Amino acid sequence: MMERLFVIGNEAIGWGALMADCDAFFGYPITPQNEVAEWFSREFPRRGKVFFQATSETSAINLVYGAAAYGVRVMTSTSGPGWSLMQETMSHLANAELPAVVVLVQRGGPGMGTTRHSQMDYFTATRCGGHGGYKNIVLCPSSVQETHDLMQLAFYLADKYRNPVVVLTDALIGMTLETLELEKIDFGPLPEKDWTAKGRARNKDGQIHIVNSSQGLFPWPYPNYLAFLTHLDEKYKAMTDAELRYESYQVEDAELILVAYGYPSGVCREACDMARSQGLRVGLVRPITAWPFPYQVLREKARQGVKFLVVEDSLGLMVEDVQSCVMKQSEVHLLNMLARHSPGETGLLFPERVFEEIRRLL
Amino acid sequence: MMERLFVIGNEAIGWGALMADCDAFFGYPITPQNEVAEWFSREFPRRGKVFFQATSETSAINLVYGAAAYGVRVMTSTSGPGWSLMQETMSHLANAELPAVVVLVQRGGPGMGTTRHSQMDYFTATRCGGHGGYKNIVLCPSSVQETHDLMQLAFYLADKYRNPVVVLTDALIGMTLETLELEKIDFGPLPEKDWTAKGRARNKDGQIHIVNSSQGLFPWPYPNYLAFLTHLDEKYKAMTDAELRYESYQVEDAELILVAYGYPSGVCREACDMARSQGLRVGLVRPITAWPFPYQVLREKARQGVKFLVVEDSLGLMVEDVQSCVMKQSEVHLLNMLARHSPGETGLLFPERVFEEIRRLL
Amino acid sequence: MMERLFVIGNEAIGWGALMADCDAFFGYPITPQNEVAEWFSREFPRRGKVFFQATSETSAINLVYGAAAYGVRVMTSTSGPGWSLMQETMSHLANAELPAVVVLVQRGGPGMGTTRHSQMDYFTATRCGGHGGYKNIVLCPSSVQETHDLMQLAFYLADKYRNPVVVLTDALIGMTLETLELEKIDFGPLPEKDWTAKGRARNKDGQIHIVNSSQGLFPWPYPNYLAFLTHLDEKYKAMTDAELRYESYQVEDAELILVAYGYPSGVCREACDMARSQGLRVGLVRPITAWPFPYQVLREKARQGVKFLVVEDSLGLMVEDVQSCVMKQSEVHLLNMLARHSPGETGLLFPERVFEEIRRLL
Amino acid sequence: MMERLFVIGNEAIGWGALMADCDAFFGYPITPQNEVAEWFSREFPRRGKVFFQATSETSAINLVYGAAAYGVRVMTSTSGPGWSLMQETMSHLANAELPAVVVLVQRGGPGMGTTRHSQMDYFTATRCGGHGGYKNIVLCPSSVQETHDLMQLAFYLADKYRNPVVVLTDALIGMTLETLELEKIDFGPLPEKDWTAKGRARNKDGQIHIVNSSQGLFPWPYPNYLAFLTHLDEKYKAMTDAELRYESYQVEDAELILVAYGYPSGVCREACDMARSQGLRVGLVRPITAWPFPYQVLREKARQGVKFLVVEDSLGLMVEDVQSCVMKQSEVHLLNMLARHSPGETGLLFPERVFEEIRRLL
Repeated sequence: MMERLFVIGNEAIGWGALMADCDAFFGYPITPQNEVAEWFSREFPRRGKVFFQATSETSAINLVYGAAAYGVRVMTSTSGPGWSLMQETMSHLANAELPAVVVLVQRGGPGMGTTRHSQMDYFTATRCGGHGGYKNIVLCPSSVQETHDLMQLAFYLADKYRNPVVVLTDALIGMTLETLELEKIDFGPLPEKDWTAKGRARNKDGQIHIVNSSQGLFPWPYPNYLAFLTHLDEKYKAMTDAELRYESYQVEDAELILVAYGYPSGVCREACDMARSQGLRVGLVRPITAWPFPYQVLREKARQGVKFLVVEDSLGLMVEDVQSCVMKQSEVHLLNMLARHSPGETGLLFPERVFEEIRRLL
Repeated sequence: MMERLFVIGNEAIGWGALMADCDAFFGYPITPQNEVAEWFSREFPRRGKVFFQATSETSAINLVYGAAAYGVRVMTSTSGPGWSLMQETMSHLANAELPAVVVLVQRGGPGMGTTRHSQMDYFTATRCGGHGGYKNIVLCPSSVQETHDLMQLAFYLADKYRNPVVVLTDALIGMTLETLELEKIDFGPLPEKDWTAKGRARNKDGQIHIVNSSQGLFPWPYPNYLAFLTHLDEKYKAMTDAELRYESYQVEDAELILVAYGYPSGVCREACDMARSQGLRVGLVRPITAWPFPYQVLREKARQGVKFLVVEDSLGLMVEDVQSCVMKQSEVHLLNMLARHSPGETGLLFPERVFEEIRRLL
Repeated sequence: MMERLFVIGNEAIGWGALMADCDAFFGYPITPQNEVAEWFSREFPRRGKVFFQATSETSAINLVYGAAAYGVRVMTSTSGPGWSLMQETMSHLANAELPAVVVLVQRGGPGMGTTRHSQMDYFTATRCGGHGGYKNIVLCPSSVQETHDLMQLAFYLADKYRNPVVVLTDALIGMTLETLELEKIDFGPLPEKDWTAKGRARNKDGQIHIVNSSQGLFPWPYPNYLAFLTHLDEKYKAMTDAELRYESYQVEDAELILVAYGYPSGVCREACDMARSQGLRVGLVRPITAWPFPYQVLREKARQGVKFLVVEDSLGLMVEDVQSCVMKQSEVHLLNMLARHSPGETGLLFPERVFEEIRRLL
Repeated sequence: MMERLFVIGNEAIGWGALMADCDAFFGYPITPQNEVAEWFSREFPRRGKVFFQATSETSAINLVYGAAAYGVRVMTSTSGPGWSLMQETMSHLANAELPAVVVLVQRGGPGMGTTRHSQMDYFTATRCGGHGGYKNIVLCPSSVQETHDLMQLAFYLADKYRNPVVVLTDALIGMTLETLELEKIDFGPLPEKDWTAKGRARNKDGQIHIVNSSQGLFPWPYPNYLAFLTHLDEKYKAMTDAELRYESYQVEDAELILVAYGYPSGVCREACDMARSQGLRVGLVRPITAWPFPYQVLREKARQGVKFLVVEDSLGLMVEDVQSCVMKQSEVHLLNMLARHSPGETGLLFPERVFEEIRRLL
């Protein structure tokens, strides 16, 4: 099965979910992710799959919880304010160890902010905005094709770890029109879903209850709270060890390494090419997983005295992760949504501006 | 005015708020912070102040928003799951630049977790769980007296920066019974609240609207979104520069520095004394502000080759901030809620266990 | 198409809806109507139709509104407390002239009441509990077969009048197991649904809006509010004139006429037969439509001096409608849920008790 | 205490409540009752009483429930759509036997309707829109002064019967400016509130619970459900017998009796005077309680062959109650919001139009 489409990133979310055998989508309208829900409303019912517009984002994520508890491959999609409303249930999903995919198409904040491009939800995605110190893998596509690919990976990882997975994208990739090669990616076998709610049974008091090992109600299958947390701790460490993904571009001999994810990573690749064409030794490290974060590769480079330029459409969030890799061993610079733009501009990052900054630094 | 009381930490929250001239409390019941709301329900109405139990945490924080918009000194209090429900409005408070104090008495998570002691909300407090990359100062008391003191500082800083301030405490400090010296602390003059909603006016279309400069609706007083974000950026930098607070204890000659906040910091101080009594050179750095974090002092010590032991009642969250200060220049160890406790234990951290770890490391 | 099933009344609701080409069911669990929702959850998805369990009864009826606006044949089902929560939207459905079927399986009230048999929602169904003085036809089945038949009539009348129709039943009929002959009833042609929301258009200000003539937003298609109300008034009068349905049983020569709907009507028929077998001239009038109510036939009989005995599983609600037919021209007696039952009894009405009352009256 | 004010009817609601020692008001904005809430927001806090704007009408009536359970004299106020949202809790108030006053300032319906004068909520008020067949007294003021007086009666009757009382008024009386003589009316002694929630106790399982005899949780103080309903039945009959109130005006020799409540009753009184001045024998019966309804007086007159003209700002609701008094013994005519008004008119009823109808009928 291979088909070529010409679609925007927000539609690639749907196509990727379809390739991943997603069976249900619950969501609530919010710009700039409305094309996602629109895709599902159009494509899912005709395939006998479920699309449902919930009464709020809180309702949507709880519907995701319910479907996931019964073993349905399920997802939702939202933007900043909706994401905030989902935090309690994100924590419950982590506690109940339920696989689900949540797409976060970033917009400007805080509060109402703007509905335009931005990357201001990096921390609430990577550090988890809900209570209780849980973790979720965060995947960051940088193109329409990669959106489609990472959606499939997201569903795979959710099932593999019985944990929610966040796909962190932005309005620019969401609205970019590119060629997409539709293809089902095979990541290998998944464990049996022997834990799902299956039906009803009577407990010792004779009351009917749902048989659901996913509820995390002790003592099943862990003898107590600390035993359960020990299990979570091991799972999170396994994620950290096994699921780090990033892309390096011309970093071998680089004196300056750009660090960017999402749409600015494409901007940086272009700036990198401009720099190389003028003989400047510039490379790019692009985190594909924002959590776990590629600390190690950046630390290595920092020890070699390589400088860093973080390009980020926010006031500077991921830059803190880069700084924590580098400390005083080298320099970390930031080109953010504000840097040297004249008032009235939109804050959009573009290659010429990054290149200008490269020249200033080298 | 000076009075001596014998109260628990959760009550000291109320007494501190009273000293800070707080006028209104909105909240919703959740363990282990119920004594906070109970205090306000008992002490506020009799003083002509407002106590209101809202229909949910979402409702409570929105009532806080409304009162703050009219210039009322206002607060709420909650624990993990309630905190998750407040994230959208935390972001709106930051956007509208409204001063408010939010007390977070941590409990175990994720999901339902436990209602006992824990420090699992470090990231959602310091990295801000809501959307849009805003910042709020996070104050961490380690005793009943300090709870009372930091509550007053919290209200002062909220007004100073027109920003929400989080008081991050835990069930153990909340339930500890200690002597409290009630005293109004004078932090100096505050700016006029010339920005509050004051009444009604007609806009150019003749419609009546609330005059409220706090709504962050452009173009007032900023010409556009980026100009407003530039202002926020400057404010957040000013907070970072001016509001860092921490306590050092016997760090001068220390080979090993314990890092802890909240109740484990008291545990560590005792372990520190045990170690000193046996000639072991151990110190303690206790962040009073978890954001901004005392990176600088830890970096200095790391450069000198000092080792670190983070003691934290979670799987390990603040430890990441310490690691980012230290990198490969020294060692960072973690004693968390799991480390070497036998199954069935509660995960409570205590001095002997910390001392045992100190001996292992030195 | 003709099939014979052995089912309970609550399942007959589903089978009737299926015969009526209902395409979507939205509901929320409440005893004693849970078998209704269970039926739809089992039978609808496998037929490619929609079953959705909403987050509340308020949500369910609003989903009904949304689906109806797009021309979907849609229904919900609930019991007393859920019915109360639906009142605002019942009024909106009437205003927007949207066809929908709402099944009300009565339970005991007020407040929590009991989940058992009762007929205590007669007034909120026939007088319409929501605001604004609208009307809806109320159909009252008295057997499993009639449940199935009236469900089809309900959908037909909803479409015919573009108005919600209520099917008012009770826990006893709902749980009675009887033979059901499944059969599609043909009530004749229905008007075109030329009024449904069809898609999007731009209004004169260039804004995209949903094209939906059902929204009742003036001036379409009525020049003003009073013109619209004139239309409603005519519609309600047409319903009153054309849709009255009732059953007479041995009333020709009766000295005493029993009046009952729902499960007590079966009880009364038996009591009637007992009486006839002893030579007592007793008949039964059973309203099939509780609104419009068969005033005329009762008035005729009252004028002839016939006595009435209303048998009703409530404190006495429909009895007021009977009294208003009869006034001082004859006698109206009431056998209600309380009458001469010893404390501790369930209040269930049964034939021997009715017969005893008949003998007392004749 | 006697003071003279010049206020509108909506303000007289507040002044009456104040005279009745009402201590708390919970509400949510809706036209045309906003002046009510505005009055309480201005006058209650300055007197140390509670005004709280809830997050919805549902929330408001539940706050009323909570306050009433603790013995607070409490009320809310709303219009049609808000009233619909309160129906579930109205039923719960009746079940828990909690005294509370609910003011319903009628507006046009159904659905959004209009915010203008109307009397379209007669049935949902008098027949009770919530589930479970409960009853509540409905008081109908016809002037500013009577609004103030009936508010006091409402609080008295609520306490006397431990039952919600509805004050059914309309936008026209609400906005009419008249002289008000502020005076505390003494209706006599009230029973002890020995049933209120008082604090906490431990049940036999050692759990703390609220001591509240008002919850209607069996078996306290009734042995079972039917015993409780028997009590309710007796209470409702006592209300019917003791609380009927109406005003007769020139009915002694009348050939035609106008029947009207609320603002149309003032219109009718004027029309009546016009008729009398021309020698036409016309009178007026004005129900002060819409439930219980003055059936008896109308029946007497009907038997004497007197004709009736119901004047009602709706499609015709109360007219059904009048018809049920009269049947075929006399004539009942209706002048409603539609009758012979040209399109575009507002449907407002006025004396000349009523007089014209009188002349047509006599």
